[in-house]
Amino acid sequence: MGMAVETHTIELSTKGSGHIVDLTPKVREILEHSRIESGIACLILPGSTGVVTTIEYESGVLRDLSEAMERLVPRDQPYHHDRAWGDGNGFSHVRSALFGASFSFPFTDRKPILGTWQQIVFVECDNRPRKRRLVLQLVG
Amino acid sequence: MGMAVETHTIELSTKGSGHIVDLTPKVREILEHSRIESGIACLILPGSTGVVTTIEYESGVLRDLSEAMERLVPRDQPYHHDRAWGDGNGFSHVRSALFGASFSFPFTDRKPILGTWQQIVFVECDNRPRKRRLVLQLVG
Amino acid sequence: MGMAVETHTIELSTKGSGHIVDLTPKVREILEHSRIESGIACLILPGSTGVVTTIEYESGVLRDLSEAMERLVPRDQPYHHDRAWGDGNGFSHVRSALFGASFSFPFTDRKPILGTWQQIVFVECDNRPRKRRLVLQLVG
Repeated sequence: MGMAVETHTIELSTKGSGHIVDLTPKVREILEHSRIESGIACLILPGSTGVVTTIEYESGVLRDLSEAMERLVPRDQPYHHDRAWGDGNGFSHVRSALFGASFSFPFTDRKPILGTWQQIVFVECDNRPRKRRLVLQLVG
Repeated sequence: MGMAVETHTIELSTKGSGHIVDLTPKVREILEHSRIESGIACLILPGSTGVVTTIEYESGVLRDLSEAMERLVPRDQPYHHDRAWGDGNGFSHVRSALFGASFSFPFTDRKPILGTWQQIVFVECDNRPRKRRLVLQLVG
Repeated sequence: MGMAVETHTIELSTKGSGHIVDLTPKVREILEHSRIESGIACLILPGSTGVVTTIEYESGVLRDLSEAMERLVPRDQPYHHDRAWGDGNGFSHVRSALFGASFSFPFTDRKPILGTWQQIVFVECDNRPRKRRLVLQLVG
């Protein structure tokens, strides 16, 4: 049995800050059709204003996560980034650095090793709708 | 020399929120007996109410970490998750999403590449004692 | 085509807490000269008082990140770690556990998969200048 690397992409459109997308169904689909049976997967946003993490994809806790982000890194306070560039998304960059732009997880038998109530999510942090193209790298 | 993947599990029992377990001895033991000499390891909690990260396993700084978690994501405030499900562990989910449920690290010569005062820890965030089964995936 | 593992080191000197170093040029250079064309890279600080994450390397947003760290995990408050050890760097340990001491990302064609405005950075969190030796592990 040889080892291999596969590069997959996941495309999505977001509605701007606070939009949380469940990536798990797409991740499962990619893994099911992969040549690689088991290994490590790394999912990244090539970008600086979004987050990849895990959480239970349940509307209550998603609101809790959004409110925690707002409390930890408030949108409505002055950011040096905004003074310099006028983008108004200084908070987006800081949230991404804090929560992380990539998430790695193991897979076996072409399935991600996750809890039943644990989903891999993309959290849009930018202050406007974005088209996003995430990359899922498989090694095994 | 061929490449390989290994899947290991680490089982533990926790006393509930704030219990921090040093996983480094078990990780070292697994690596020592692995067929794989060097590569990347990914350690994950398949679950949505715990954290895998690194910190110096020293009682003072462990208290500091617990207090920081309490300050950043307080237990005693209303969570939408709790209103919907009555679990009382909305804070646990948000802490897991913030600090992260997986941690990846390199290993060489069957040893993890870590600092002397840096330990890999599992932080129980749930509001009750739990039996946990973490997965350590090795690729190399 | 065989699979392989490579271990590289990145050495740097920091000026103490708040010093943020752009590691992307060095990471790109290592990847360009690697035998491995594509795979997953794991960059770690073997140490407990620093952070590896991504952010746009722009002076305004770097100040925003530093100020957010100060707000989330203040330097000037009592830490149990400091009472026990007198290091005065309790805040450094907590920041490292919160933001993370390792960061993983995919690479293809000997290039990291990152956004144009997204850089991989080391954030010194310790309260004094440090010589740092980070490890970049490649598997692919």
